[in-house]
Amino acid sequence: MKKQLDLTLYLVLDPLLCGGIDGMVTTTKIAVENGVTAVQLRSEQEYSGKNWYDAAQALKEVLSRTQVPLFINDHVDIALAIDADGVHIGQSDLPVDVTRRLIGTDKWLGLSVSNQSQLENVPWHLVDYLGIGPIYPTATKKDAAAATGIAQLKELVKAKQCPAVAIGGIGVNNLTEVIQTGIEGIAVVSAICGQANLAKATSDLISKIKQAK
Amino acid sequence: MKKQLDLTLYLVLDPLLCGGIDGMVTTTKIAVENGVTAVQLRSEQEYSGKNWYDAAQALKEVLSRTQVPLFINDHVDIALAIDADGVHIGQSDLPVDVTRRLIGTDKWLGLSVSNQSQLENVPWHLVDYLGIGPIYPTATKKDAAAATGIAQLKELVKAKQCPAVAIGGIGVNNLTEVIQTGIEGIAVVSAICGQANLAKATSDLISKIKQAK
Repeated sequence: MKKQLDLTLYLVLDPLLCGGIDGMVTTTKIAVENGVTAVQLRSEQEYSGKNWYDAAQALKEVLSRTQVPLFINDHVDIALAIDADGVHIGQSDLPVDVTRRLIGTDKWLGLSVSNQSQLENVPWHLVDYLGIGPIYPTATKKDAAAATGIAQLKELVKAKQCPAVAIGGIGVNNLTEVIQTGIEGIAVVSAICGQANLAKATSDLISKIKQAK
Repeated sequence: MKKQLDLTLYLVLDPLLCGGIDGMVTTTKIAVENGVTAVQLRSEQEYSGKNWYDAAQALKEVLSRTQVPLFINDHVDIALAIDADGVHIGQSDLPVDVTRRLIGTDKWLGLSVSNQSQLENVPWHLVDYLGIGPIYPTATKKDAAAATGIAQLKELVKAKQCPAVAIGGIGVNNLTEVIQTGIEGIAVVSAICGQANLAKATSDLISKIKQAK
């Protein structure tokens, strides 16, 4: 059965920041216990097919006992191989229509957009949610576009026709203004991955999101 | 209908050496006209999902008018997206059984092996051919294993239970001893990609292979 799509706090796992597969598994367990509502596996480093597969399988196992869906970034073959809950693609990945054809209608499909022109080209009937960003400058994504900022985010939130998460440089100190644009949730990498106290980092984010809503 | 698997001269295309998608298309056309029997798309550089898809589609189009099959290196999703003739995987890619499950039985599956121990672990019922190498030191594959050499190649050819191509640093000047191990064919990258006279480079290789057999 398809898991629920709750974008409130969407964790993007980075193998390097988390310290490999074991680190990602631990991070996921603690983050989910403390309120994370969706998890994505993404690697900004070179990561072999075998590494992707092993990591995705380990994460699927952890999340199988929860209602939290697992998304695979870009690698549709890995998502199919482990029967992930969804795929997240960017503007330079496989086209949306091709991705949807490969994954069928039983998996969630997320798409990154950075600006109005990309938003206007979203095939809304094929996409389940958007990742909008980077909102602020970010160090965790090599090929990130220029920062969107809050003013542009507001416009994009107004124009979008499906739920969305904001991503890029978001943490406890700046998430209030992001959430107050009306967006459904935020996605974080370094605000959780690699944090010394994962439970506190996660629950602080959740409290702040609830306050802001 | 499944194309025939003829490993005599197997061209591995490199986008950088060929000069992008247009260069790969031109290289493929001329190489196939001059005797290449199989083509693989591989990229040793960072190559986005969109690039893989566009390149694979362009190559499929060229080869659709021929009996020459198109293989996609590692990226099973791309192979599925364009309905390629086959997939080639290495020891660090998705496991053989997972790959076979994803591509079904209508696509060819090739596997790279470098030594006796890898050969002993080949699931023969799942694999259609092997790529054995690198035979000689090579500059076109970043993560290549140590060179196999002719003596070890002979042992591997004796022990294998399916057809194979030898790969890695093979050209007109050293292919005779490779072919005389009894292997079905050779795979080349730089012996064709980037050569000033693609037709001559290809037909010279074909003549030499025929002489050696």
